[in-house]
Amino acid sequence: MPLPQSPTLDATFAALSDATRRAIIARLATGDATVLELAAPFEMSLPAISKHLKVLERAGLITRGRDAQRRPCSLRAAALEDVAAWAEHTRRVWEARFDRLDTYLRELQADEHEPPPTTDHDNERGHHGRKRKKS
Amino acid sequence: MPLPQSPTLDATFAALSDATRRAIIARLATGDATVLELAAPFEMSLPAISKHLKVLERAGLITRGRDAQRRPCSLRAAALEDVAAWAEHTRRVWEARFDRLDTYLRELQADEHEPPPTTDHDNERGHHGRKRKKS
Repeated sequence: MPLPQSPTLDATFAALSDATRRAIIARLATGDATVLELAAPFEMSLPAISKHLKVLERAGLITRGRDAQRRPCSLRAAALEDVAAWAEHTRRVWEARFDRLDTYLRELQADEHEPPPTTDHDNERGHHGRKRKKS
Repeated sequence: MPLPQSPTLDATFAALSDATRRAIIARLATGDATVLELAAPFEMSLPAISKHLKVLERAGLITRGRDAQRRPCSLRAAALEDVAAWAEHTRRVWEARFDRLDTYLRELQADEHEPPPTTDHDNERGHHGRKRKKS
């Protein structure tokens, strides 16, 4: 199964490898916000927050408005969806593996507990038996 | 809404910020594999693959068997699920925002096209009107 191997996905995962940046993304998921609004819940300087925003912007996770004074930040859902899609796809491949294993084990159990059904092999033996009785 | 902010999640996202490591995880999702089996599809030295495996192991994304010769690698689904859960949760918060916006816009449209219903405000005005008429 093909998986996206884009360098963008590299940058997206790297950007999300920081708890503060994930918290910023979680905040922006509820609505756009300015740098000041984003800085409020963190005990961080504005330059420190701005640095995090630049990482998120370069990774395609946020966009920033053109209003020079406010420059509100918006979440870019497409990048977030790429991450979710990758994790979901890989999880499904993993689960499918156990479904196959489960089916196999159930087939094995059924073979152990149920009386063996009449097979072509049994018929063949019966046939030979009758043959032997006759002669 | 609370979100997991564990340092483990930092390491998990960081480990997945490399296309080769994501490809290794995708391969292990289909079943356990030895270092040699994992190295086969990549034009990479065994030490380079081993280095990637160490990053994935430290991030909790894989475990390695005790058999000193083979040391087969297994995917640790829990870490993958943490990533999927984070991305899914954040996406749902984002989508809920648009659902709310959609409801609001539909209400606005309904207000424009339909005759305004009788409200408490109207009743209040009617009451005052009657009062004024009486005095």
